[in-house]
Amino acid sequence: MQILQVKKELVLTSRLEGLGHLPIKALVSQTGEVLVAMDPVGTKLGDWVFTIANSAARDAAGDKRLLTDLTVGGIIDDWQPEQK
Amino acid sequence: MQILQVKKELVLTSRLEGLGHLPIKALVSQTGEVLVAMDPVGTKLGDWVFTIANSAARDAAGDKRLLTDLTVGGIIDDWQPEQK
Amino acid sequence: MQILQVKKELVLTSRLEGLGHLPIKALVSQTGEVLVAMDPVGTKLGDWVFTIANSAARDAAGDKRLLTDLTVGGIIDDWQPEQK
Amino acid sequence: MQILQVKKELVLTSRLEGLGHLPIKALVSQTGEVLVAMDPVGTKLGDWVFTIANSAARDAAGDKRLLTDLTVGGIIDDWQPEQK
Amino acid sequence: MQILQVKKELVLTSRLEGLGHLPIKALVSQTGEVLVAMDPVGTKLGDWVFTIANSAARDAAGDKRLLTDLTVGGIIDDWQPEQK
Repeated sequence: MQILQVKKELVLTSRLEGLGHLPIKALVSQTGEVLVAMDPVGTKLGDWVFTIANSAARDAAGDKRLLTDLTVGGIIDDWQPEQK
Repeated sequence: MQILQVKKELVLTSRLEGLGHLPIKALVSQTGEVLVAMDPVGTKLGDWVFTIANSAARDAAGDKRLLTDLTVGGIIDDWQPEQK
Repeated sequence: MQILQVKKELVLTSRLEGLGHLPIKALVSQTGEVLVAMDPVGTKLGDWVFTIANSAARDAAGDKRLLTDLTVGGIIDDWQPEQK
Repeated sequence: MQILQVKKELVLTSRLEGLGHLPIKALVSQTGEVLVAMDPVGTKLGDWVFTIANSAARDAAGDKRLLTDLTVGGIIDDWQPEQK
Repeated sequence: MQILQVKKELVLTSRLEGLGHLPIKALVSQTGEVLVAMDPVGTKLGDWVFTIANSAARDAAGDKRLLTDLTVGGIIDDWQPEQK
């Protein structure tokens, strides 16, 4: 699982039906990498969260038919990103 | 899930039968990494898309027997790649 | 599997129910990468551990319904991180 | 899926039985990373190919009991590696 | 699959039961990355091996209940690491 910060909600066109109705958000790691996750938790921009990948991501999204490989699992209280 | 830009459609020889009939496209990340994905969405060159990996990629392609580990899930409206 | 050092226990709000009741810990690799894992072993801060990823992580956590992609598998005796 | 170039066929000793009888080849990415894949396609040294990872790799190899996490899916016509 | 060199056998405390009785070894890549794998092949320190990841790793270890995401698949004869 990874620690990422919520950056923006994505607006999608031509999306697959199997994505369901959860918001899909762009998240950024402490090293600047951008990833995309389903958000069943209801995060706000700027929240530090941890994400669950691969097969567990589908169950985490609430329905194993959902088309996701990354889902927000929870919001981390009081996370201090490292100084580089 | 990752954010990638559509670069070109691949022309393949000697391909496996289980790849089916969807177009297979080369995509590039913001850091320059090149990946290959099935495209059930019908993207155009230059579109910014997000991709779904691993077991969900097969369902995303429309048939879990398809041989893919990466499938386009949707086109992102108005994505602004980061300045580096 | 990877070798990581236990850094801190995470305090989570708004977490998914399927995470169960094991502690969730931030771990750091020798190169400084931060990852998050479930800990069924009972590690202490500073322990060097190895982690199990993806589908085996769920079984390692003791119940394959648990929402994890990374679980601590054991504590390594006498690990000497490399000099860089 | 990734784009890689065929580098050499591996000669193996003490290999597991579940690897079957397909050739196992070392492939190199455009950034110099070396990976190993099963080859059901019959590639030649120097061919640019794309590879399929994880669970789909086993089906791609022709039998889901085969012990592989990476399998060649097809040969790419006329691939021009990027100038760096 | 990846090419790695056997570095040392790990001594573990507080390990999970589901790890079984195979040796668990630290391996190092040509770029210096350290990974951990189960070894059903019986490798010696310094051997160049290839490893099988994720779901196939569990079958490669001989029992799909084993808690592993990386297993040694075979020893490579006469591997010449690249000059950098």
